[in-house]
Amino acid sequence: MDVAVHGVGTSHFGRQPGRALIDLAWDAVGEALADAETDHVDAVYVGTVFGAPGVAQRVLSALGITGVPVLTLENACASGTTAFVEAHESVRTGRYGRVLALGLEQMSTAFDGAIHPETSDAEGVSGLALPALYAMAAHRYLQTGAATAQQLAAVSVKNHAHALHNDRAQYSGRYTIEQVLDSRMIADPLTLLQCCPSSDGAAAAVLGPADGRPGQVPVRGLALRSGTLWDHRSSHVWGYDLVAETARHAYEQAGLGPADLDVLEVHDAFSIGEVVTIEALGLVGPGEGGKAAASGRTALGGDQPVNPSGGLLSRGHPLGASGLAQIAEVVWQLRGAAGGRQVPGARTGLVETMGGGVSGIDGNACVVVVLGT
Amino acid sequence: MDVAVHGVGTSHFGRQPGRALIDLAWDAVGEALADAETDHVDAVYVGTVFGAPGVAQRVLSALGITGVPVLTLENACASGTTAFVEAHESVRTGRYGRVLALGLEQMSTAFDGAIHPETSDAEGVSGLALPALYAMAAHRYLQTGAATAQQLAAVSVKNHAHALHNDRAQYSGRYTIEQVLDSRMIADPLTLLQCCPSSDGAAAAVLGPADGRPGQVPVRGLALRSGTLWDHRSSHVWGYDLVAETARHAYEQAGLGPADLDVLEVHDAFSIGEVVTIEALGLVGPGEGGKAAASGRTALGGDQPVNPSGGLLSRGHPLGASGLAQIAEVVWQLRGAAGGRQVPGARTGLVETMGGGVSGIDGNACVVVVLGT
Repeated sequence: MDVAVHGVGTSHFGRQPGRALIDLAWDAVGEALADAETDHVDAVYVGTVFGAPGVAQRVLSALGITGVPVLTLENACASGTTAFVEAHESVRTGRYGRVLALGLEQMSTAFDGAIHPETSDAEGVSGLALPALYAMAAHRYLQTGAATAQQLAAVSVKNHAHALHNDRAQYSGRYTIEQVLDSRMIADPLTLLQCCPSSDGAAAAVLGPADGRPGQVPVRGLALRSGTLWDHRSSHVWGYDLVAETARHAYEQAGLGPADLDVLEVHDAFSIGEVVTIEALGLVGPGEGGKAAASGRTALGGDQPVNPSGGLLSRGHPLGASGLAQIAEVVWQLRGAAGGRQVPGARTGLVETMGGGVSGIDGNACVVVVLGT
Repeated sequence: MDVAVHGVGTSHFGRQPGRALIDLAWDAVGEALADAETDHVDAVYVGTVFGAPGVAQRVLSALGITGVPVLTLENACASGTTAFVEAHESVRTGRYGRVLALGLEQMSTAFDGAIHPETSDAEGVSGLALPALYAMAAHRYLQTGAATAQQLAAVSVKNHAHALHNDRAQYSGRYTIEQVLDSRMIADPLTLLQCCPSSDGAAAAVLGPADGRPGQVPVRGLALRSGTLWDHRSSHVWGYDLVAETARHAYEQAGLGPADLDVLEVHDAFSIGEVVTIEALGLVGPGEGGKAAASGRTALGGDQPVNPSGGLLSRGHPLGASGLAQIAEVVWQLRGAAGGRQVPGARTGLVETMGGGVSGIDGNACVVVVLGT
């Protein structure tokens, strides 16, 4: 069965310790159900990373959604899009009729101080948390001469400027390259403005059969893959191979290629992430990712805008919710409902989410979704 | 497509803080893969409750299982059987060919002192942790006059005796009713020997198409439901309605009823759990659950043995692994490979897992699986 997104919704993104998770969830779920013009779903797929056991059921019961199967999935930063993929599969196969995918994360109340790595997390234990992992990728990338530090910083400048048109974004602003490079160093060469913030938020999508009603956005193709052991002899930096392979599957299913995309939301947890990802997606050639941001090619007004919402860097990154926030943004774009950040005439869009880094593994997970006509 | 279990495996169950999660996982996965005579799976569904984010990928990569989709599910104590249900669905619909379902939990290293309830967990915050919730159910059940405290204790006597034949069980022993009632009070009327222990362990199943090869155990029917808002006017105690409704769906799919079952593994996290569950499953009439244990009807040698493995009470309860440990036990029983605890001539078996309790909800989740011919 062909599947479409019937409705989407999100909360505001930001540090919101004073708002209960259920309030954030209701903002997203209420908007998505109203958008889909329904008050019933047959099942719920929830993505959350640090949500406590049972939190999804508690939140859903408080929202009056009970008595239907609830499946809670964890897949690192790709948890939200993983919930979307599983929800999509359940509609595609006719297992369920109309399904809610919900991403939830409250980072500000979940952590009291440092995040302690679990003992089996060899990367974490050795200090290779994600900022360090991405920083090493950035170092390697810069050493190849493919980009300059200024070009990496241009990703941050672009995405912060995009978010000026998104009133749900955690941050926004007109920065210069110099301001980005002069912000506090987090993990050399990644400065503060090149790292996503810690966020609270929720995002949701209602999926159902594609029956052609107005407002529905068809799902054209999607793929979920987990990483293989990282081949340190690879000529690519961390993450590239997994994104490229996942995209290949999604493009094949959608019957199109990167040149057909009008708008993209990709996983810019760190500036280098967007650079490597748009190369791996084939949007630009190898070594062209940094230049694309600096030249304006991937900015609003450019050929193929990337992260018009502000991306994770600026809209914020509530882990389990981010993937569904990306889905919501692309749905709004394809409906022509994205307001001041609208990509004119957008008909086809792509969402890419990268999940985690695991000892010796080229990413926990990657999800690529192609939406539109 | 018809689906069968091709192989199963488990670790030892118990407090094993000195064994890494990966060692426990390998015991289960290695045995299950060897049992299924394969070394490749197309996807992995993992159930864990308190496993750290990414733990499944870390464990799987260490076992050499990389590059395939990994879906990690949390559904309270039903996480393992939830992974089984999702794995089953993926084979049934042809999404994947051969799939691994893996349940993982290391309780002894996950907690340093008390488990602090999450702020949205109104039951937990008010002291209504699961022992208290089951204890209230037990009180109500006893007040109806359906059973005596001695009959509840008989469940513990039976399951601890069963585990004498299970060398992977955490505990076992020949207790008297009096010894069970005289053990330390945990949540009145539930004494220590009527409460499952805290455990470390792993369990796994390989699922694939039912092609009739020897050793395969067909999946005849299964259902997963989440609770509805708890109607406090209900004549049934907590959990009953959800188990009964889930079982109805599974029986319908399997085309059989409780009288056709030769062996059962049910969620006896507390003695009252088994009593209420076998009534809700229709194995015995209302108010007959306690008597069934006391009379020997559900003991090895009785008409329809329940929890021959020793159950959660005695084999142990590593939350995310328990459901798949139940599956493994029923598979061994239906193959005639259960050794000293074999139910003679068993052809059809049932697994029931109950997950959690959520404010005002009749259980997070319930899974019922009917296996055999």
